[in-house]
Amino acid sequence: MGKYEIDFEPIGRRGKFTAETSLLDCARQLSVDLISICGGTGSCGWCKVQVVSGQVSPHAKREQEILSTRELELGYRLACMTYPLSNVKLSIPPESLSAPQRTQVEGLDVSVDPDPPVQLVDAHLSQPTVNSPKADARSLWLALKTQGIGEGRIDYQVLKTLSSQIREYGWHVHAAVRGNEIIAISGPSTQNLGLAIDIGTTKIAGYLVNIQTGTTLASKGMMNPQISYGEDVISRIVAANKSSEDATKLQSLLVETLNQLAENLCEEINAAPEQILEVVVVGNTAMHHIFLGLPVRQLGLSPYVPAVVSKLDIKAREIGLKIAPGGYIHILPNIAGYVGADHVAMLLATRMHEFDDTTLAIDIGTNTEICLTNGGRMISASCASGPAFEGAHIKFGMRAAPGAIEHVRLQDDRLEIQTIDGQPPIGICGSGLLDVVAQLRLNGIVESNGKLSSHPLVQIQDDKPVFVVAQRPELDPITVSQKDVRELQLAKAAIRLGIKALLEAEGVDENEIKQIIIAGAFGTFLDVQSAIAIGMLPNLPLERFRQVGNAAGTGARLVLISQSERKKSLEIARRVEYIELAKVSNFDRKFAEATYL
Amino acid sequence: MGKYEIDFEPIGRRGKFTAETSLLDCARQLSVDLISICGGTGSCGWCKVQVVSGQVSPHAKREQEILSTRELELGYRLACMTYPLSNVKLSIPPESLSAPQRTQVEGLDVSVDPDPPVQLVDAHLSQPTVNSPKADARSLWLALKTQGIGEGRIDYQVLKTLSSQIREYGWHVHAAVRGNEIIAISGPSTQNLGLAIDIGTTKIAGYLVNIQTGTTLASKGMMNPQISYGEDVISRIVAANKSSEDATKLQSLLVETLNQLAENLCEEINAAPEQILEVVVVGNTAMHHIFLGLPVRQLGLSPYVPAVVSKLDIKAREIGLKIAPGGYIHILPNIAGYVGADHVAMLLATRMHEFDDTTLAIDIGTNTEICLTNGGRMISASCASGPAFEGAHIKFGMRAAPGAIEHVRLQDDRLEIQTIDGQPPIGICGSGLLDVVAQLRLNGIVESNGKLSSHPLVQIQDDKPVFVVAQRPELDPITVSQKDVRELQLAKAAIRLGIKALLEAEGVDENEIKQIIIAGAFGTFLDVQSAIAIGMLPNLPLERFRQVGNAAGTGARLVLISQSERKKSLEIARRVEYIELAKVSNFDRKFAEATYL
Repeated sequence: MGKYEIDFEPIGRRGKFTAETSLLDCARQLSVDLISICGGTGSCGWCKVQVVSGQVSPHAKREQEILSTRELELGYRLACMTYPLSNVKLSIPPESLSAPQRTQVEGLDVSVDPDPPVQLVDAHLSQPTVNSPKADARSLWLALKTQGIGEGRIDYQVLKTLSSQIREYGWHVHAAVRGNEIIAISGPSTQNLGLAIDIGTTKIAGYLVNIQTGTTLASKGMMNPQISYGEDVISRIVAANKSSEDATKLQSLLVETLNQLAENLCEEINAAPEQILEVVVVGNTAMHHIFLGLPVRQLGLSPYVPAVVSKLDIKAREIGLKIAPGGYIHILPNIAGYVGADHVAMLLATRMHEFDDTTLAIDIGTNTEICLTNGGRMISASCASGPAFEGAHIKFGMRAAPGAIEHVRLQDDRLEIQTIDGQPPIGICGSGLLDVVAQLRLNGIVESNGKLSSHPLVQIQDDKPVFVVAQRPELDPITVSQKDVRELQLAKAAIRLGIKALLEAEGVDENEIKQIIIAGAFGTFLDVQSAIAIGMLPNLPLERFRQVGNAAGTGARLVLISQSERKKSLEIARRVEYIELAKVSNFDRKFAEATYL
Repeated sequence: MGKYEIDFEPIGRRGKFTAETSLLDCARQLSVDLISICGGTGSCGWCKVQVVSGQVSPHAKREQEILSTRELELGYRLACMTYPLSNVKLSIPPESLSAPQRTQVEGLDVSVDPDPPVQLVDAHLSQPTVNSPKADARSLWLALKTQGIGEGRIDYQVLKTLSSQIREYGWHVHAAVRGNEIIAISGPSTQNLGLAIDIGTTKIAGYLVNIQTGTTLASKGMMNPQISYGEDVISRIVAANKSSEDATKLQSLLVETLNQLAENLCEEINAAPEQILEVVVVGNTAMHHIFLGLPVRQLGLSPYVPAVVSKLDIKAREIGLKIAPGGYIHILPNIAGYVGADHVAMLLATRMHEFDDTTLAIDIGTNTEICLTNGGRMISASCASGPAFEGAHIKFGMRAAPGAIEHVRLQDDRLEIQTIDGQPPIGICGSGLLDVVAQLRLNGIVESNGKLSSHPLVQIQDDKPVFVVAQRPELDPITVSQKDVRELQLAKAAIRLGIKALLEAEGVDENEIKQIIIAGAFGTFLDVQSAIAIGMLPNLPLERFRQVGNAAGTGARLVLISQSERKKSLEIARRVEYIELAKVSNFDRKFAEATYL
């Protein structure tokens, strides 16, 4: 029996399979992690793929029930119900990929030629003699001159060890040159490492990059250790304002964690943090200020002004970050008090500045920033969506970790659940909560004001209704409470109101939006249909949505490896206009309206 | 009876006196401190002045005995023996001025228009509003723009306090701008202070300067605290090489002293060290390296290479100097391992780079640097003259402080002495020792090889001859021992050999030297005739000598107040050629010859 080549895009995994292998089984054998809650019985409807080219088996009855007319027209199929009849090329929509796949920051087809801010230059020095007793620094510059590097300055800390180092390395060294400054000296075997960091209110992402080649060598996420001082931006500002000791403590906690992150990332590739030559940091304005030890008092009071918005280049040692002795931290510009450098990085990574079409980019986090491009203009707003999507303030809430319920479907009064890594359920993460409420709403189990009505899965606990999501042996069942639903309503209302305010400011109707880019870790995992179902996102065709993962982190990496991307980031920060949501007329009434599911 | 105007130059003191007032009395009444050991009896010959214009009384017999034919021809007179017959203009040779006058670093007619590296710019900021919530840094740059200052960068430490400061000062501040960087923010009442420091192996001189006007507001000398680690440069290098803790200790001792110096100077004018916006430091290469914490191992071993020779601009906080938060230390370039930034500063202050004539500049200190200009070339050498001139290793040696015997004359087997401030004698400083040995030599009491012969004032103590300089009630007499004479011979030989080596290198004869500039604190006090008498300086007419005080300190001040002087200092460092004395052929034999008195 003949075999056909099955090609899964955009991941680029291919293999040969017989006509008796379902596309879901093909995917499994190629380790493409398509979501399949029902286990391939055609009941959950999660394993959607789009047939780009080639012949496949005719539609099963179940597919015609589950897929929309529009999806059927576009060639969407359920992988478990479909078999190849020729070589087939498939496109996997991001929402069909399960968690482990989606933690990788993909979905952005941005390709940039490295044009790094730091060069490692090979220098063979002439030894001084009695007849030519040249100063060591002079001998170094003469050697660099042969490599086309003109004389500039040497970082003071580098100067302090220069004489011993060039003797230790036998008069053959690598000089790390940044602009006209030597920021490190090393033996000739070093690679050109850089570190990109995205400091979120809740989470921190770090990427260790070879800035000469642009390759990401290792990446890692960590919790923001300031979380003990409060979960949202405002509570951090309040904490930092208490006393200068508190402000210093908040900063040093963060710096310690970043040093730990750098160390862990370097361990993975057998390098030392001292080999990191440049760091790029992005974060919202409050994280930016606290990280730099800048005062935040004026950030917490109207008119909410930042101490500084322009890009900064600061010696890492001034902050306490342990990298190359003279290495810099490059910090992207902020836009306003609540639209920070992470937003600039996200816009850069998503190429929002290049779009002429009406496009919306939403970076969902504890604080959510939204940007609308419309005919060359870029306007942004910030909304306090809170940490509900991170699992905070939710009874069984948890972060997106193994055992978290990340997706659910209500099927004939029976709930089908999918946990991360297929582990027994231990709680619900943001995307799971979103799915639960969407399913409740779609099945009329909550009213549009969020009130839980009666249903076999709704129980009364302590006089209050809860919805049972999963039973567990010997443990209380995992439930979603009335209060949990309220928390989600507040979060989604903040985002929806932000979107509305931007559209109104530009006089654009929702239907005119050509594309909605959803960034942020949670944004990668959420089910767009669920988000639409609860009214968090506009009800637009699914193909207009693009889930791009941690775009702020990607933007930080672009800026780390490319000086021309740095210039673009400045241009973006200059161009973006900022709307203060608190100034929107009838804000309170509009917010209340937006909470409706 | 008519009065005549008597004008003492170059000091510029004038007054009207009768024909019955001796020129010495005129000087005394004008507080011009002419040296007069004998008290105006015509016997000591110290109160020499040169009559530039006007009529004075005929020569007294004593004058014809004491003054040389050449001096008589040039109009030199003893002030105590001379009376005005008309308005008279006099020139006081530096050697005729007593100590207190000469501690002031005058004698250099260098006038420079201030062109300071840091400007204090008045900035009236617009307060942010809800409709214009500008970042604080942005508001500052906008205010500076109205003063013609383009946007640049803000020092990180300044940025950290910017928001609170501009609010504290009510949106009206002074910004200290250096190049394109804001290095400090202050209230509107600050003055533009700078600190010039000359770090000598033995002594440190500090000058607090208003860098906008160029005025020196306060000056002070201190001992170099590293002296406990050894008196000369080599012993300091050895000490710093022992361990990194020792090197750090040597540096921190120095930095503490400089902080103390800055504090004391600021106290004098009711300012705070934080108001100092710029520091200029000069010193020999070893002091330079130890101050900066640079390795000195390679400086102590052939081929004696410095870590760095180029000028440096380093944030003061990196060294631990407590000035304005973002203030810099500017360090002049070095020339070679043993010809440092202090030499460059001395050459700048003396304008040696402008001389076409054959000129010699000698900066006498624990290490003595000598430069010869000859038809546009500048060549320099360094000689280890040792600390004898500072009173070290001399039995009754002491620094030039009140009570130090600074000048002596042997008169009919009786020694006339002059002490600093006229205090009872407590010891002998460098210029006193030089005078003693010169008098001993001129009177045949030491042989040319330095051996003391018999004389009423030569006594035997512990089997060794000593020369009694001063008797003291209830105390041992102050004496100069045979060993003291030997120490002085070594010191003077080093200097004389350095001069010879430079002349030989250029093929110039001593008589062709048009001018000899003597710099350094000791150089100000020494009696040139005594220095000639013992063979330390070439036997040239006195009018070819110019004693200019701490020219290195003056050079540091020029560089502090003027950017164009900074450029000149770089030019000088580039131009000067360096001769290594150790490489002179037959060095040992020549050195032995040079010890002869």
